[in-house]
Amino acid sequence: MSRTSSALGVAVIGHSFMGKAHSQAWRNVNATFDTPKVAMRVLVGRDAGTVEASARRYGWEASSIDWRASILREDVDIVDICTPGALHAEIAIFALEHGKHVLVEKPLANTVAQAQAMAEAASAAADAGVVSMLGFNYRRVPALVLARDLVAAGRLGELRQLNIRYYQDWLVDAGSPMSWRLRREEAGSGALGDLGSHAVDQVHYLTGAKVSSVSATSKTFVSRRPGAAGDEEVTVDDAIWSTLELDNGAVATVEATRMATGRKNSFRIEAYGSRGSLAFDLESLNHLQLCDSGAPAGEQGSKTILVTEPEHPYLDGWWPTGHVLGWADTFTHEIRDLLLAIEGNTQASPSFAEGLEVQRVLSAIEHSAANNCARVAPDPVPVT
Amino acid sequence: MSRTSSALGVAVIGHSFMGKAHSQAWRNVNATFDTPKVAMRVLVGRDAGTVEASARRYGWEASSIDWRASILREDVDIVDICTPGALHAEIAIFALEHGKHVLVEKPLANTVAQAQAMAEAASAAADAGVVSMLGFNYRRVPALVLARDLVAAGRLGELRQLNIRYYQDWLVDAGSPMSWRLRREEAGSGALGDLGSHAVDQVHYLTGAKVSSVSATSKTFVSRRPGAAGDEEVTVDDAIWSTLELDNGAVATVEATRMATGRKNSFRIEAYGSRGSLAFDLESLNHLQLCDSGAPAGEQGSKTILVTEPEHPYLDGWWPTGHVLGWADTFTHEIRDLLLAIEGNTQASPSFAEGLEVQRVLSAIEHSAANNCARVAPDPVPVT
Amino acid sequence: MSRTSSALGVAVIGHSFMGKAHSQAWRNVNATFDTPKVAMRVLVGRDAGTVEASARRYGWEASSIDWRASILREDVDIVDICTPGALHAEIAIFALEHGKHVLVEKPLANTVAQAQAMAEAASAAADAGVVSMLGFNYRRVPALVLARDLVAAGRLGELRQLNIRYYQDWLVDAGSPMSWRLRREEAGSGALGDLGSHAVDQVHYLTGAKVSSVSATSKTFVSRRPGAAGDEEVTVDDAIWSTLELDNGAVATVEATRMATGRKNSFRIEAYGSRGSLAFDLESLNHLQLCDSGAPAGEQGSKTILVTEPEHPYLDGWWPTGHVLGWADTFTHEIRDLLLAIEGNTQASPSFAEGLEVQRVLSAIEHSAANNCARVAPDPVPVT
Amino acid sequence: MSRTSSALGVAVIGHSFMGKAHSQAWRNVNATFDTPKVAMRVLVGRDAGTVEASARRYGWEASSIDWRASILREDVDIVDICTPGALHAEIAIFALEHGKHVLVEKPLANTVAQAQAMAEAASAAADAGVVSMLGFNYRRVPALVLARDLVAAGRLGELRQLNIRYYQDWLVDAGSPMSWRLRREEAGSGALGDLGSHAVDQVHYLTGAKVSSVSATSKTFVSRRPGAAGDEEVTVDDAIWSTLELDNGAVATVEATRMATGRKNSFRIEAYGSRGSLAFDLESLNHLQLCDSGAPAGEQGSKTILVTEPEHPYLDGWWPTGHVLGWADTFTHEIRDLLLAIEGNTQASPSFAEGLEVQRVLSAIEHSAANNCARVAPDPVPVT
Repeated sequence: MSRTSSALGVAVIGHSFMGKAHSQAWRNVNATFDTPKVAMRVLVGRDAGTVEASARRYGWEASSIDWRASILREDVDIVDICTPGALHAEIAIFALEHGKHVLVEKPLANTVAQAQAMAEAASAAADAGVVSMLGFNYRRVPALVLARDLVAAGRLGELRQLNIRYYQDWLVDAGSPMSWRLRREEAGSGALGDLGSHAVDQVHYLTGAKVSSVSATSKTFVSRRPGAAGDEEVTVDDAIWSTLELDNGAVATVEATRMATGRKNSFRIEAYGSRGSLAFDLESLNHLQLCDSGAPAGEQGSKTILVTEPEHPYLDGWWPTGHVLGWADTFTHEIRDLLLAIEGNTQASPSFAEGLEVQRVLSAIEHSAANNCARVAPDPVPVT
Repeated sequence: MSRTSSALGVAVIGHSFMGKAHSQAWRNVNATFDTPKVAMRVLVGRDAGTVEASARRYGWEASSIDWRASILREDVDIVDICTPGALHAEIAIFALEHGKHVLVEKPLANTVAQAQAMAEAASAAADAGVVSMLGFNYRRVPALVLARDLVAAGRLGELRQLNIRYYQDWLVDAGSPMSWRLRREEAGSGALGDLGSHAVDQVHYLTGAKVSSVSATSKTFVSRRPGAAGDEEVTVDDAIWSTLELDNGAVATVEATRMATGRKNSFRIEAYGSRGSLAFDLESLNHLQLCDSGAPAGEQGSKTILVTEPEHPYLDGWWPTGHVLGWADTFTHEIRDLLLAIEGNTQASPSFAEGLEVQRVLSAIEHSAANNCARVAPDPVPVT
Repeated sequence: MSRTSSALGVAVIGHSFMGKAHSQAWRNVNATFDTPKVAMRVLVGRDAGTVEASARRYGWEASSIDWRASILREDVDIVDICTPGALHAEIAIFALEHGKHVLVEKPLANTVAQAQAMAEAASAAADAGVVSMLGFNYRRVPALVLARDLVAAGRLGELRQLNIRYYQDWLVDAGSPMSWRLRREEAGSGALGDLGSHAVDQVHYLTGAKVSSVSATSKTFVSRRPGAAGDEEVTVDDAIWSTLELDNGAVATVEATRMATGRKNSFRIEAYGSRGSLAFDLESLNHLQLCDSGAPAGEQGSKTILVTEPEHPYLDGWWPTGHVLGWADTFTHEIRDLLLAIEGNTQASPSFAEGLEVQRVLSAIEHSAANNCARVAPDPVPVT
Repeated sequence: MSRTSSALGVAVIGHSFMGKAHSQAWRNVNATFDTPKVAMRVLVGRDAGTVEASARRYGWEASSIDWRASILREDVDIVDICTPGALHAEIAIFALEHGKHVLVEKPLANTVAQAQAMAEAASAAADAGVVSMLGFNYRRVPALVLARDLVAAGRLGELRQLNIRYYQDWLVDAGSPMSWRLRREEAGSGALGDLGSHAVDQVHYLTGAKVSSVSATSKTFVSRRPGAAGDEEVTVDDAIWSTLELDNGAVATVEATRMATGRKNSFRIEAYGSRGSLAFDLESLNHLQLCDSGAPAGEQGSKTILVTEPEHPYLDGWWPTGHVLGWADTFTHEIRDLLLAIEGNTQASPSFAEGLEVQRVLSAIEHSAANNCARVAPDPVPVT
């Protein structure tokens, strides 16, 4: 494909864990996939010294501590927001209003109200040809794209049961210290928003259905932790359990915890339909289990597919069969898709509206957990 | 150990799936374990011809169609009840009142009221030295005994999360026919009673805690199935999902389904504590996963233990290391324990009172599922 | 099927590990499978007191210390030999010459010469309608029967590579004591005969091919072990490795060791053909892995089959789907097949001739290992 | 660490599979690890147009079709050779003689003679402070570094048995076409050199021992394949099997095949010692199995370690716990180590001398396979 020589300029806001991971993806996307060219213009942070060091390290042309000025640069076309969630709305809306394409790390925002405002800004910007996308990177795990494709093709028949569990264990030790992630006013919620948001997004992604109602329980197992000035109260959940009814008749369980000893980053999915089933674990992200109940009697079973064939999603850009990908490569896929959406002037997915839908479900889960597990519908009323 | 020469006489009531499995255990228990001797006196059924054939086949001295007369035989000391659940109460109470030791297949009964009456009869009989036991055979899977022992020894620290899922798939096909198991008046419930009862019993068994409250959802995915006279309504659940709060502060999920395509008899358990975790699947019943979070940094992980060492529960009666056991061998363990309780005149476990406790939890799950998932406590009031 | 009322009388010679396992199978076969009835007449051992205790325990009508007299009993039709290998030939030939059907535990004998004499006796007896069978019980693991059936049906296409490894670890500790199993004059060989014989038999069984030539290495890692009177020399192999060329063009590796730390009874098989592949591990004996290279692009993978369906070999005699079998159940299958061969007056398999073929391959492996790994053909000349 | 501002200039020779993978590593190394800075000066290929496109795509400053001139550039300090093996010797020796640091993709060369010449050149250059390294990238898989560290620390006790198998399946189809990889004159050998070289290198790496002798079998299952001008003869091996005796008393099997249906890139390693064992499969490269035979009786088993902790080799440069790496990331590790060796003026490993040692073993395997499997020692005599 012949493309114009001018590259799309990129600014990344934020340079810790996510900023580093996104930087790697920006660095590698053109070498891996056939997309518009990118130029890594500026990395933005709060402290001039550290962000300059990061920028040099990660391959950026420049660094800045002024996110507004960086967004307004003429040579910046795309703004990639990797800040904590509380800042997402302000930055994203500013960028969209100034005609810049926007990628926002998940979750979309800390509140439904912020998410609603962002979705409205994205919708308005879309009319002007501005692309926005939310960074649920697990939609770019090849095995999960394959899973979604199999479901969409009817290979599982009528989908009935879904189990999604995001288990980590970094809070197991009751003596581990207090942090901002454990304070409601800063983090919004605990395992629910951090891990559960991925799980709810996958419910939407894999099934194409909407959540009709939820019932949920939440728990904080360790209620006080050592802070800088003595013990502090933990004001977010350590774990949540929820049962979701979907509008296609299926039932999904969504669980998230930071207390699952021995599970490091175990995002497990099982899906059961009338004709087949699927299973996945992020700790083995190149594998997908597939069971086809139409196999001959005596030969049924779950098949382990190593998702590294050229026929598999995104794999044609990488290596020959059998050479496994890593977690960070999903961001390269994400950015590929963003660039192709910009080039083709099509809607990117997940959109901010899809992110808002996730926030509504998370909010309903919180509501149910606070109300004796009562089954409730996600609030459908636009927050204004 | 020297024992008197007279054997304990046994009557088994019922000779289909469970009657056959129990017969094998009665046949093998003396060859495998050092217990009082047994004599297989009589197998009882409804049809004279078929029960006589079964009796000859399974090694019984005689057959009968009169369960009362069989129980009253002077040479019968133990009555083993393998009938459908609706008959458990009448037969068990009759046997206990006549001074016979009783083993009842799970679940204890179809209703809390029946279970309550049985527990009272068992309690009265115990005062007279009569032993009663409920047949939750998964308490006799060596890997699960090991799991319980590890939990009890504090090897998992403070137990926080438990997931128990009993998944089968024999109802996946919407065209498979109606049967008595799908009618509420005969079966009591669907996956809940059949599979969920094992799960709830394991919650009690593994943790030693009681269930404080439950919230649950249930679902019948295929609401009508072909019967002898046209389509019939399915009046039991295909699947249930529940979240249990325990009186030790832990949270347990209990799920049961007959719709999990590809899961044949998958009774999976995960337990997470502050110092370790465990995992088990009945489809690989000789294995237990154990994670110890106290392992050196860089060497943590879940260990797969093949539970076939002489040190493992029940294994000293069987074969050398590495020679795996099967599902049916758990009944041999169960009967061994019953015989030793009779010999030692001690209480067998699980007792009818423990079975009643399971029924109360199942009843609470039904209640919550019928009431918008509201969290409810199992009814503590004796039903009279 | 209607059968005459008279049962086939059985004598088992030997009452340690194998005698106990066979006794269980004789006790259970009629309850499980539709075969001629058996009567457990007599258990034979060396010490009157211990064999009498074993007989009572395992359900035998009588015990004896005279194997000849026991074999000659009029009410004994079948002789099942569970003694150490050195005694197999004398007892089996005696029984066959007196018209008794014979089952011999593997390996057939300690030497090719003995095996040859046994095969000749079996052949002569067969002309008189006397059935003989060798007890390679892994031919009765349902998953391996399924594997053989799939190979025979061409589901793997042209078979090219086979790996068979029998790994145990009970000799890992260099301080574990000397025993008869480690002396060549008593045991014949070490891992080779004990474990390797199963492996070589499976090469024959799974492929239907013959071994054209072998190259082998053997090793004794711990050359001296503590005996009753000080350190003794270990005169058998701890481990062997061999590469077999088969007459169908395939290559098979056969490995056996008692030094594989952590492998308790790991008999692993992998088979690769032009259209598919298989994998199996005895430690999970209810599972078979099957890969079909004809699956659609992007959906290839190895399927884990739980071999507990009614369609699977031997499973119709047991329990419903998903209820796993144990190691000892394979002997019940073996005896079922023996009884059906006797009833139908057909040749049982594996025959003594097949056992002789295994001995020849084992002998060639020893020869190669002693001769610088030189590739040699199993000696085809009858030993006389 | 303060470093001079001038970056080390790099030239990569070759831009197909390996050139692309190495380019990604050069692009990412400074963002991931604390090493000297690199500048991606020039990518070298045979065709001006395609190499220029590759250079732009992969992030190189320039492209060239003149490898000598590129090496001689003043701003090039490191030459990374990703050409077919037949060209390694000439290019590497030229670069070394001109004082450039050299990284060569494995295998070192196609012949022992070439490898010998390269080792001599590297040795001479080392005296002048020039670093050379061979690219066996599986030495940079964190799980295998952990494995080596555990062996070296004595955690497995005395190492006795090692199994290394490299299985792929891309030649399973007898109708797949002829290629240069199947002609001896171009490829040197088949699975032996391509896959077996990794296996032999891991024998050296994991054990620290040397190979005393080998016995081997090789096989070409499909002897003719369709070429451009009709069927052509395949002149390399499809598969090899070998048994290696090591100078520390251990025995290692090394197998390599391109015919293992369903194995895409399955490089499996098992190591058994007197105190523990290990297992690994490249298709799950973030996991290592570890068994410690010193665990309490009843709790022994193989532990699955997810090798993504900060304490694990190379992981401190990447992401938080539980975020898995991919195959290509091993090259980033490799280049990190090369850069640190250059900076510290220390010998990099594996050295060309180590590569030569691998070639000698491969040559011995070929020799044994061609000589009736006779056990032979690798030729210790320098080839001159």
